[in-house]
Amino acid sequence: MKETLSIVKIGGNIIEDNDGLFQLLQSFSHMKGAKILVHGGGKKATEMGNKLGIEAKMTNGRRITDAQSLDVAVMVYGGLVNKNIVAKLQGLGTNSIGMSGADGGSIRAHKRAVQEVDFGFVGDIEAVNAQGVFSLLQTGFTPVFCALTHDGKGQLLNTNADTIASELAVGLTSHFETTLYYCFEKKGVLRNVSDENSVITHIDSHSYKTLLEEGIISDGMLPKLHNCFYALQNKVKKVCIGDSSMIRNESTTFTTLTL
Amino acid sequence: MKETLSIVKIGGNIIEDNDGLFQLLQSFSHMKGAKILVHGGGKKATEMGNKLGIEAKMTNGRRITDAQSLDVAVMVYGGLVNKNIVAKLQGLGTNSIGMSGADGGSIRAHKRAVQEVDFGFVGDIEAVNAQGVFSLLQTGFTPVFCALTHDGKGQLLNTNADTIASELAVGLTSHFETTLYYCFEKKGVLRNVSDENSVITHIDSHSYKTLLEEGIISDGMLPKLHNCFYALQNKVKKVCIGDSSMIRNESTTFTTLTL
Repeated sequence: MKETLSIVKIGGNIIEDNDGLFQLLQSFSHMKGAKILVHGGGKKATEMGNKLGIEAKMTNGRRITDAQSLDVAVMVYGGLVNKNIVAKLQGLGTNSIGMSGADGGSIRAHKRAVQEVDFGFVGDIEAVNAQGVFSLLQTGFTPVFCALTHDGKGQLLNTNADTIASELAVGLTSHFETTLYYCFEKKGVLRNVSDENSVITHIDSHSYKTLLEEGIISDGMLPKLHNCFYALQNKVKKVCIGDSSMIRNESTTFTTLTL
Repeated sequence: MKETLSIVKIGGNIIEDNDGLFQLLQSFSHMKGAKILVHGGGKKATEMGNKLGIEAKMTNGRRITDAQSLDVAVMVYGGLVNKNIVAKLQGLGTNSIGMSGADGGSIRAHKRAVQEVDFGFVGDIEAVNAQGVFSLLQTGFTPVFCALTHDGKGQLLNTNADTIASELAVGLTSHFETTLYYCFEKKGVLRNVSDENSVITHIDSHSYKTLLEEGIISDGMLPKLHNCFYALQNKVKKVCIGDSSMIRNESTTFTTLTL
């Protein structure tokens, strides 16, 4: 039987709350077995861009990553957020190692093709170097990934952290029985967005289709659940969506997704 | 016989010159055997601090690293500079992995004790986790270290890059026959600071003492040479000081230091 691997993706709201982040890292450090943390950068990159007088560029409501914005993302995600998480995990006894997709050639992407919009330095993932990440895990390291990839030719790229988490989970199914946790500000996928307690505790392929048809999954949850079912369809065993208490292994309410 | 390990430390002036940096990385990627790159951040951190309105704090001419300055160092050294070097090396076929001393618990330091001056978040190195760095090298990774360490309790610290290079070199002598290269803007240690061609091609313990007595080694070269002889006295085989051409393996002039 394969060993288990937990991949925990934490969202921007957790990054911005120092106490909440520390609690999450404590819970993460107590998780058994091989594990990987993936983090976004939240509003910190936007804040830093504002301080530096770099305006966030938008086209049709979508964010554009120009060269200056990429530098800010590299500083904030790859530097400030990632290294502080790594140091805190070390303080909690977890032998963490900070990673972008460039480090160890772990995640190669290509600059998103220009169709209606040129998104700039945004990377769509081509390949996860599962053997490289596996060797780090085998050596006893706990990788902490930020939302950056590279094109293999020297260029860093900005890549959605949810996608990084699901692609890592899929890539590592060859070596592990993999569970993917999406940790964000809500208790799970809600039936009614204005009722925090309307968590749907289980979604499978069949109910997913119904929820889509009924329009219950919409807006930001659409790409998140797309990532979840992409992972499940590619041999990830289980996906869980919920708030930090889900990681604490308490009896808590969250959404479990299976095929 | 032990395998060879080359540790190359590159200075700020190389970091600031994009073409020069790329040439250096090309040369580094052609070096045979196990290797580690160590980089400072040069003026980029000061520039970024200025842009963010953070004044460099000085006491008695010594730089103080307050919490804000540390954040800038973490963003610039650990993020912008480190990740771009890693991506460029990947593009050159070298399987680099970016590291601070927190990553993999590789370099533990303590906050410098307050005597006459409180230097703030500056770390004096306590221990190199040679086994951890060795395992990365054995797996085929080429570590790229920035000038940051941690205290093992969750706090990042700013640490001189020359010292990081010499402590890594010393720590890894248990596993490798280690050569340390200090790569900076001059062709080597100069007998006459105003004559770029007055390179002293060889310094040993004996001539070092004489050079110190004659006042030929002074100012910024004092701590650099102190690091060199510290390394040599602790089983590092050879230390070389020179400009980038030294790494290119051309027949070139530079300073070699031995015991």
